[in-house]
Amino acid sequence: MPGVSLRHGNLLAGLRPGQPEEQIEALVGGPGFRIERIVSTGQASPAGFWYDQPDDEFVVLLTGSARLRFEQGDRVLDMKPGDWVEIPAHTRHRVEWTQADPPTVWLAVHRGAMS
Amino acid sequence: MPGVSLRHGNLLAGLRPGQPEEQIEALVGGPGFRIERIVSTGQASPAGFWYDQPDDEFVVLLTGSARLRFEQGDRVLDMKPGDWVEIPAHTRHRVEWTQADPPTVWLAVHRGAMS
Repeated sequence: MPGVSLRHGNLLAGLRPGQPEEQIEALVGGPGFRIERIVSTGQASPAGFWYDQPDDEFVVLLTGSARLRFEQGDRVLDMKPGDWVEIPAHTRHRVEWTQADPPTVWLAVHRGAMS
Repeated sequence: MPGVSLRHGNLLAGLRPGQPEEQIEALVGGPGFRIERIVSTGQASPAGFWYDQPDDEFVVLLTGSARLRFEQGDRVLDMKPGDWVEIPAHTRHRVEWTQADPPTVWLAVHRGAMS
């Protein structure tokens, strides 16, 4: 019997510091659902920019570090490896900074209406 | 303005080696969707047992190590930190072994019909 076909990989493989943009790779997906790896190498949200997403997002930081800011109450969340947060749809937030080297690796799970 | 209310935590916090059972903690969920942390400390599937789940599962190993076996073609997947695999519904599989100490930490994302 042939082996089962599986999608698999490693979130920490092939990291390249010093990229000009965040690297976003969709791993699996379907209607109203997407899991992606995000590699940040120092990027941050532009000044004054807030994400306002139509989908619920669950994000976990695997390596590196970062700071998220939420508009409501001007709340800050410092992220270190293993830290996760659920960001409900339309919760306005931004990325204040990310560690550049070694890169900051996130796993993000989106569900609901996709942006 | 009061701060936004967020669910957050750390997947690597509060690990206790030597537990008799796998520790499964639901982090977020909703209809047809669940994200959980699984902490394995040496557990394996019982002899002859195969998981046959009605939901699609995405799993990533954060720390520790483990071996998964898939019935079709008797395929084996050794898992180290950062490794992920998508296990479509009804893909029969088992956990051959898990590292006990330090514990093996998984993040699992289930979607579709829930078991």
